[in-house]
Amino acid sequence: MDPVGFYFDFGSPYGYLASKRIDGIAARHGREVAWHAFLVGAAVKITGSASLFEQPLRGDYTIHDMHRFARLQGVPLKAPATLPAHSLAASRAYYWLFDQDAALAKAFANAVFDAIWGEGRDLSSPEAVAEVAASQGVDAKALLAAISSQPVKDRLREAIEAAMAKGVFGSPYFLVDGEGFWGMDRLDQVERWLETGGW
Amino acid sequence: MDPVGFYFDFGSPYGYLASKRIDGIAARHGREVAWHAFLVGAAVKITGSASLFEQPLRGDYTIHDMHRFARLQGVPLKAPATLPAHSLAASRAYYWLFDQDAALAKAFANAVFDAIWGEGRDLSSPEAVAEVAASQGVDAKALLAAISSQPVKDRLREAIEAAMAKGVFGSPYFLVDGEGFWGMDRLDQVERWLETGGW
Repeated sequence: MDPVGFYFDFGSPYGYLASKRIDGIAARHGREVAWHAFLVGAAVKITGSASLFEQPLRGDYTIHDMHRFARLQGVPLKAPATLPAHSLAASRAYYWLFDQDAALAKAFANAVFDAIWGEGRDLSSPEAVAEVAASQGVDAKALLAAISSQPVKDRLREAIEAAMAKGVFGSPYFLVDGEGFWGMDRLDQVERWLETGGW
Repeated sequence: MDPVGFYFDFGSPYGYLASKRIDGIAARHGREVAWHAFLVGAAVKITGSASLFEQPLRGDYTIHDMHRFARLQGVPLKAPATLPAHSLAASRAYYWLFDQDAALAKAFANAVFDAIWGEGRDLSSPEAVAEVAASQGVDAKALLAAISSQPVKDRLREAIEAAMAKGVFGSPYFLVDGEGFWGMDRLDQVERWLETGGW
């Protein structure tokens, strides 16, 4: 059976919360999960909606909600001082690693999520991303050279275009046998869809 | 104990879906529900975000999602031909009725939701709203006169300002002992908050 598609922006707290649950949900139904880094900013150019954090009222609510959600889920959450958190460098690094070693890329993705949303670290610079990668055994210099190269920039752009061609526009976004679900708060429906094949 | 605040826009399909569940959830925890009509458009002026239906990608997703959600919930859903559905006249009528008879206002609110989202009727005109009200025993002529009068216009505006002063900006929005929850997909957390008093 096809893997469940898990699309996330490293700058999305709900993507972080979902990253803690999606593998377990899929495994209960005998499925793998394909992780795809995504930049919500690319879709925002089309949807026209700014980051939740940049919207009055909604921004404050989101900060309150993400902490409440994390407490309920029993996951540590500490927001970076500057929001939205920029995820371009980490996303490029993700695909560069993925093309060499998918398991390493996933370990890196978890480390990036934990750094940004578990510890509130600022990972907007390539250097900060390289430091996290180094903690996973990645050569920091090679990573810095790679993510400023045109082929790696193109690789991310193409991955985002491919995701958007499948209807992805937010984070987290899940694809189960062609059925799309947007939001951490659709995980219960994702699980039910895996269980029942749809309704 | 204070009633649970339920804020809804008649033009919101998720408000409709929530209206079918919120009273039951509150009742299980010995609570009443105070229903408040709200215009998301008033908050949009501040949040800067357009109706989901007016956003490319998100609009299509929302139409798919609301139908999928309704099927899961076992509630009939038929979308009006023109979206977003305008709710100004119905909201004015709601408060005019509420100030006379809260139970009648609630029956009217349910009838409006069922007409717009259960049957896909266009309730943007005062006349269409009066027709629904008439089916609940309301004098249609009196209603039409009332909702074009300044005091009733002011009544709605003040209700919306009071809601926004409490942090309300979307539909549905729930207030449980001062704790705000945005979205149909937070109903499980609303119930847990009622059960536990918070976490």
